[in-house]
Amino acid sequence: MTALWQRQPVGIVGMGLIGGSLGLDLIALGAEVRALVHREATASRARERGLATTVSTDPAVLAGCGLVLLALPLDQLLDPPPSLLAALPPEAVITDVGSVKGPVLTAWRRSLDGSAGRFVASHPMAGTARAGVEAGQAGLFSGRPWVATPGQDTEPAALEAVRQLAEALGARWLVCEAADHDRAVALISHLPVLVSAALLQTADQASAQAAVGLPQLVRALASSGFADTTRVGGGNPELGLWMARWNRQALLEGLRDYRRVLEQLEQLVEEQDWPELQRNLADCQRLRPEFL
Amino acid sequence: MTALWQRQPVGIVGMGLIGGSLGLDLIALGAEVRALVHREATASRARERGLATTVSTDPAVLAGCGLVLLALPLDQLLDPPPSLLAALPPEAVITDVGSVKGPVLTAWRRSLDGSAGRFVASHPMAGTARAGVEAGQAGLFSGRPWVATPGQDTEPAALEAVRQLAEALGARWLVCEAADHDRAVALISHLPVLVSAALLQTADQASAQAAVGLPQLVRALASSGFADTTRVGGGNPELGLWMARWNRQALLEGLRDYRRVLEQLEQLVEEQDWPELQRNLADCQRLRPEFL
Repeated sequence: MTALWQRQPVGIVGMGLIGGSLGLDLIALGAEVRALVHREATASRARERGLATTVSTDPAVLAGCGLVLLALPLDQLLDPPPSLLAALPPEAVITDVGSVKGPVLTAWRRSLDGSAGRFVASHPMAGTARAGVEAGQAGLFSGRPWVATPGQDTEPAALEAVRQLAEALGARWLVCEAADHDRAVALISHLPVLVSAALLQTADQASAQAAVGLPQLVRALASSGFADTTRVGGGNPELGLWMARWNRQALLEGLRDYRRVLEQLEQLVEEQDWPELQRNLADCQRLRPEFL
Repeated sequence: MTALWQRQPVGIVGMGLIGGSLGLDLIALGAEVRALVHREATASRARERGLATTVSTDPAVLAGCGLVLLALPLDQLLDPPPSLLAALPPEAVITDVGSVKGPVLTAWRRSLDGSAGRFVASHPMAGTARAGVEAGQAGLFSGRPWVATPGQDTEPAALEAVRQLAEALGARWLVCEAADHDRAVALISHLPVLVSAALLQTADQASAQAAVGLPQLVRALASSGFADTTRVGGGNPELGLWMARWNRQALLEGLRDYRRVLEQLEQLVEEQDWPELQRNLADCQRLRPEFL
């Protein structure tokens, strides 16, 4: 039996990095893709790039879609415009790509009311530093995790339709509780943003206080290690803000745990407990490959 | 007038990443390079790789060198064996490559006693994740900072000889106080190691406490952002230990500053001060390119 995305047109709302990349891959697989965007300039560019079969600023473009992918920024996902809700085909399976799942699940259960079972909260974990209609690229999801966090009321057939789509794009399909997803991304994605941002600010502020010429010196000497460690902290401030805002509780828990761990390391340096510090850093060296 | 490294053989003590790379570049520039290593197996491999003109385990190999580069790990630099000290030609300019400069300057002033003026403390800031006799590569120093931290007693001619060598290898020559160098690298190199190590440990420990399955989930979902932010924390534990041990005071100051900055960020999240958090993250985004 063919998958839902093969039997009926697929709707994509938003043609940014994720929406555009979904469109490119689905077109390449032979799907009919109908894209809804906000501005005519985006529609025009998305058409030129071949990101979808049809691109429109009119929500009616979604009529007839069997599956609709909401590739919107988190703030729009959490507060979908009534015109979008009205245009979603009543039988269509709906999924999203938001980086926090608990609040999305709550918002869309409310928005879809009687037919919330066809909403599948999901998170394809792929990205680049790029954004906007120029950012979409083929193969973005290949080998990357695609996490679904169904609720108790999620229809098995809806979940299966999204799984088939994710696997067709080469993603690794994972299912977990929304709360576990949100705790996990707090630790491996949202906490790193603040840890990294704080490092940038410390290098800036501490050098300015320490000695004349030191701000210039730290800037001249910073190399690949500093570049890597500060990359996510120097990224898009809106993404960082949304993560903190919509995953606040899990992030605060992560920050408290982090503070405790860093204080232990500081204490080892303070007390000059070099054997224990070396053991601790050797643990880190062993630990890191488990995550990558 | 030709540079010292062109007029007389150059000695290199140690054929690891830095020593081997120095040798390759100097040979390519037509210098005569005499390398001293600890083990015969290393000598044999360094000869095969063409890292020096002559490679020996006998300190006498350094006889006749006008300039000797000590490409040794920090612990050996700070406690040089008497056989090495005895073999250094009495008129030769001596420089090192250690990543902390205050303690190196102190140790070598003591070791060279009456002729300390010919010692130039320096730090070519180039590296890769590799180590050992296989790691040396051509062009490692090109475009990278090479910092010298002369004392008041350092002879101008010795400093000039090292500058000419650094610039011949394409490095960017910088001169500053040893204390300023050590404060700068604490902020941009040594602090990031602990910040990054603490992030790895937090993701490991916090997930193990939070929920069944979460340790597996964080490992499955960690992606490029986590990989970048944890790279230096999951590196060679001995390097991390030496940095902490020999730059302890500056590192502790950096840790205290870092803790304060991170607490400010945590407070913004706690108080849900989203406009200020966004402003703060936007500052970071503007700040990062200044360092890279």
